[in-house]
Amino acid sequence: MKKKPSLRGVKPQVVKVPAYTLHAYEAEIKLNQNENPFDFPEDLKEETFRLFRRRQWSRYPDFVPDSLRQQLSEFAGWQKDGVLVGNGSNELLQATLMVLINGRTRVAIPSPTFTVYRLISTVLGAKVIHIPLNPDMSYNVDKLISVSRESGAGVLIVNTPNNPTGSVLKDDGLERILQQFPGFVLLDEAYYEFWGHTALRFLKNYPRLIISRTFSKAMGMASLRVGYLLADPAIAEQISKAKLPYNVNQFSLTAAEVALKNIERFQPAIEAVLKERARLGGELAEIKGLKVYPTEANFFLVEVAAKPHAVFEDLYRQGILIRDVSSYPMLSSCLRISVGTPAENDRLLLALRASLAARAAGTEYPGEPR
Amino acid sequence: MKKKPSLRGVKPQVVKVPAYTLHAYEAEIKLNQNENPFDFPEDLKEETFRLFRRRQWSRYPDFVPDSLRQQLSEFAGWQKDGVLVGNGSNELLQATLMVLINGRTRVAIPSPTFTVYRLISTVLGAKVIHIPLNPDMSYNVDKLISVSRESGAGVLIVNTPNNPTGSVLKDDGLERILQQFPGFVLLDEAYYEFWGHTALRFLKNYPRLIISRTFSKAMGMASLRVGYLLADPAIAEQISKAKLPYNVNQFSLTAAEVALKNIERFQPAIEAVLKERARLGGELAEIKGLKVYPTEANFFLVEVAAKPHAVFEDLYRQGILIRDVSSYPMLSSCLRISVGTPAENDRLLLALRASLAARAAGTEYPGEPR
Repeated sequence: MKKKPSLRGVKPQVVKVPAYTLHAYEAEIKLNQNENPFDFPEDLKEETFRLFRRRQWSRYPDFVPDSLRQQLSEFAGWQKDGVLVGNGSNELLQATLMVLINGRTRVAIPSPTFTVYRLISTVLGAKVIHIPLNPDMSYNVDKLISVSRESGAGVLIVNTPNNPTGSVLKDDGLERILQQFPGFVLLDEAYYEFWGHTALRFLKNYPRLIISRTFSKAMGMASLRVGYLLADPAIAEQISKAKLPYNVNQFSLTAAEVALKNIERFQPAIEAVLKERARLGGELAEIKGLKVYPTEANFFLVEVAAKPHAVFEDLYRQGILIRDVSSYPMLSSCLRISVGTPAENDRLLLALRASLAARAAGTEYPGEPR
Repeated sequence: MKKKPSLRGVKPQVVKVPAYTLHAYEAEIKLNQNENPFDFPEDLKEETFRLFRRRQWSRYPDFVPDSLRQQLSEFAGWQKDGVLVGNGSNELLQATLMVLINGRTRVAIPSPTFTVYRLISTVLGAKVIHIPLNPDMSYNVDKLISVSRESGAGVLIVNTPNNPTGSVLKDDGLERILQQFPGFVLLDEAYYEFWGHTALRFLKNYPRLIISRTFSKAMGMASLRVGYLLADPAIAEQISKAKLPYNVNQFSLTAAEVALKNIERFQPAIEAVLKERARLGGELAEIKGLKVYPTEANFFLVEVAAKPHAVFEDLYRQGILIRDVSSYPMLSSCLRISVGTPAENDRLLLALRASLAARAAGTEYPGEPR
């Protein structure tokens, strides 16, 4: 007999939580995912292919990617036993939360921030405590400490620089948190290369600090999903129990090793992004009807004096994809724009100026659909 | 001040559970991981490289791998909305358990079986109920039903063919379980191509059945970590909430698409493994001091009249790596041997005969270390 599908047995908090979704827009100019507009160098791609050709694809990757961990240890300046490698930093974040969260755990998360923190925490059964940023989108350290403490949170997750605001948690603020909050502090440094700053120096004295990083942004490897985590070795050992065996495929491991061996080759792209960030920030600040927030990442949060989704649509019709973040708390008038190549940013500025001018005049947007 | 690392806040069941580890042995002949001894075809490797060259590595994979899901839907004969793609089937198993397990859930698992089921369930906070196989390593369907029901299990995980025993759960047994057990049945079909049988036909009428499969074994893609799950679309939707965005890297997605487009190219390797399985099974059965269990997978469970680890070491010294499974429940005298190429199996048989003969005679093993 045909039985009616039933969700009985699926955890109620899972059924309730909305899935993390992203409408699959396609556009010529992609400024919507904070990707590196400069690709992984071509000769290093070929080197990766060359090395990967030597291996049998039918054989599992190494059980623990020891050579990559050793390289990361030297690169980051942290002991190898405290380095874990993951299928993107999100997997390591998930593994960390899996070993910390039970049905009574509270997880403190600044708001607005990267949606996946809330999604993973909720699916794992935690109660999420949202701690609003200041109105200028800076971190309110006093509030992070007091709310995390008072709610009895076991974990505080901070993204610095923060997606989608670009805000950073400075050393003095972080140190106060580490001194006064007794739980784990999970610091997501996905964009740290664009800030030029890391909290690594606190790891030694504060073993409840856990840092995650990624090869997806500055290293131009978003398609390959490699992240890493830096933590006290005793904590890393526990987290590794929630990491699946062979969690990173051998091709991506190979590419990451090639990248680290040639780390100086990635600096020009970072510098080009920083240079464009400075230029784009200055130009955006001049646009009427637009407010730009300070950023230390490779993207800008902007507030617009028009319906954000209308501006998004105007740009999309011009072949430019940015991110509509107006559904995030506090960001009902906001858009997020990744820093692109100089030519991409020029196109963006033109289209944005035209859209805002037309919207302000109450006229139809002049651009032809494309 | 330096603070002492503390595991306070890490879930007690995580601290207690041993990590899934594998000593990194290296050997000329690898018969220890149930890998396909025949590699992914060379021309299809080049086709994968060619397609992957076209993409910017710095761009994320598609949010949902729609073209691969469509191909899998056609290949498997199941609706696309009920197909999920994962970073190896283990990730999908983990995601499934994440949406089903809370701190009160019991998970029923036959024993012995693949260790990762227990590890994931325990880390997620479930109480694991082990249900022993029959002494001949066959599934005891009555016991699976009665113990799962009586323990109030929410999930029953069955691997068919079962690692490390090679046992299968036949259709009539599975249907009785689906009729009489009210929880979810997670069926891991990692080795189904070697059995030539799938439980897919039950999915339509039993929406609490969830099937996982992998590209790691018959498809020769263990290094690339691709698995998929077939389930009722309503259930798949919930499971997808625990699957991280961009969970499969673009290179592996590309390889999987190339493989499915050329699916007939993988049949000769499967047939060669089956032919060798028949030959190897016959030869193993002739060896004195060795008992071979029936198998429908690409490996054999064997019981030896000697210390299993001593036999393992004898073979290792001959450059042959097999799996010592003597620490598994019920398997204290057992080893697991993957089916290799004809030449590899010949070497294995020679070394195994010599080892068992020498061990039976109480003499030193004759082989020279290598």
